[in-house]
Amino acid sequence: MNEPLIGAVEAGGTKFVLAVARMDGTIVERVRMDTRTPTETFPEMAAFFAQHDLAGIGIASFGPIDIDPASPAYGTFTTTPKPGWSGARFHDALGGLGAPILVDTDVNGAALGEWLSGAGQGCETLAYTTVGTGIGTGVLHKGASRGGISHLEAGHIRPPRDPARDPFTGRCPFHGDCLEGLASGPAISDRWGASLDEFSASEPDAVPLIASYLADFAVTLVLMHMPDRLIFGGGVMKAPGLLGSLRQQAEARLEGYVQHPRLDPGLATYITAPGLGDDAGITGALELARRASGQGRD
Amino acid sequence: MNEPLIGAVEAGGTKFVLAVARMDGTIVERVRMDTRTPTETFPEMAAFFAQHDLAGIGIASFGPIDIDPASPAYGTFTTTPKPGWSGARFHDALGGLGAPILVDTDVNGAALGEWLSGAGQGCETLAYTTVGTGIGTGVLHKGASRGGISHLEAGHIRPPRDPARDPFTGRCPFHGDCLEGLASGPAISDRWGASLDEFSASEPDAVPLIASYLADFAVTLVLMHMPDRLIFGGGVMKAPGLLGSLRQQAEARLEGYVQHPRLDPGLATYITAPGLGDDAGITGALELARRASGQGRD
Repeated sequence: MNEPLIGAVEAGGTKFVLAVARMDGTIVERVRMDTRTPTETFPEMAAFFAQHDLAGIGIASFGPIDIDPASPAYGTFTTTPKPGWSGARFHDALGGLGAPILVDTDVNGAALGEWLSGAGQGCETLAYTTVGTGIGTGVLHKGASRGGISHLEAGHIRPPRDPARDPFTGRCPFHGDCLEGLASGPAISDRWGASLDEFSASEPDAVPLIASYLADFAVTLVLMHMPDRLIFGGGVMKAPGLLGSLRQQAEARLEGYVQHPRLDPGLATYITAPGLGDDAGITGALELARRASGQGRD
Repeated sequence: MNEPLIGAVEAGGTKFVLAVARMDGTIVERVRMDTRTPTETFPEMAAFFAQHDLAGIGIASFGPIDIDPASPAYGTFTTTPKPGWSGARFHDALGGLGAPILVDTDVNGAALGEWLSGAGQGCETLAYTTVGTGIGTGVLHKGASRGGISHLEAGHIRPPRDPARDPFTGRCPFHGDCLEGLASGPAISDRWGASLDEFSASEPDAVPLIASYLADFAVTLVLMHMPDRLIFGGGVMKAPGLLGSLRQQAEARLEGYVQHPRLDPGLATYITAPGLGDDAGITGALELARRASGQGRD
């Protein structure tokens, strides 16, 4: 009998990453697909996994999506504005393979990956935030993602905004100037007609402004979850100087209110980049697959 | 042999409530003491409990306080500005009684009480907020309080403030216009020279303004913890119209983003007053005592 294999999906708004791996995480096969509609993307995904006999499948997906294993709609996209995806269900596409399936959000998956083998190792409470097309945070406590009647929607909180400094009123279709409406990649493009990378050299105020929103958010995460560490990943975070400015402004706003050895001077180890780079999500999805198969670390 | 008794402390900044009860919660004796310095208050507290043979002691206390059972400083007040209390430790006062001790925050204790026998019954995830001398929130998930490197400090997040509508710059010694700096009882007194009760009749904008900060906070709690229910207690919440305005503004700001049967139209059952009134804290402290004795519900 062959060693059992597991399957993992990192489902994003623009691409799906699929992997088949051994239990120890060694990847046997890995592909990348463009995200189209579920009618096109789901059969292609299923065909890839059908080549293997899988002991479990783990999925770290964009949302909003039902991630309550006790819900009849477990694995179903809910109110996403992405055309065609609302109501699509992973189990409809993959249930026929016969492998147990675990589904969590993309950021919860990334938090799990970083906790297992990235910058979150040894953290009891870990917050992983992605700043890209959207903004979202997964909070992991003792290896389990925090949520309630839904997964968290932290990216939609509303930071203070000074219209004199930033007249941009935000682009979130639900809330206007929530964090995602102000500091996501599309918000940056809408405001300045360029990415933060392209814009930061000619406009020195851009990085500190975006960092100010993210710093306010980091402080809110601290006060609301008290993590051991905050990881900030995603495309926007690659802009030079952004992470440093975020650390500096977050430290200034905390004003010593939270005192703990984890909060080092300058927050250089407290607020960090991902250790796994862009592999955090698929690493977490593999752990979900391992858990689905009954072999997870927790 | 007599039925075992348990002891409970609800430790507030102005008063301590002490209770001795049977395991089923029936209170045998209950007293109230003014909070002075620990040198005065602690011996009086210890003398009260020394009259009984206790199987466990539960404490729901103001903070900041170390609530990590694994910490050598478990039960010790940390950076509180309250004169004399920083460094005081419940275990120094009560350890001699020989009963196991569990310590949590006042709001975590109140959340626990409401979850067991108040407005939070049946909730998997429950947020209990007090709006009084300070503002704090306890979040309970499956009967355990959420925290990390410390208990939560949710009352210190910074809501958006429009200086044209509210020129008051806040009174938090750490953060100025954080939620507690803007909407606590002392912030209301500083701003208007009166309590919200006294002021609301002559100044119709007062209640909606305070409610707007609390509504922003409620939305942040939803997005950050996804509770089944939000309970708002504390002295300030007794102002007529405040809870209704909070519900209305929170619903408007959520704009349908979170859809779940728990969020009823008008949020009348989603955002509620405590079911136990002012007894939530001592009820939770009794459950902590029960847990300390090994007889807790969880």
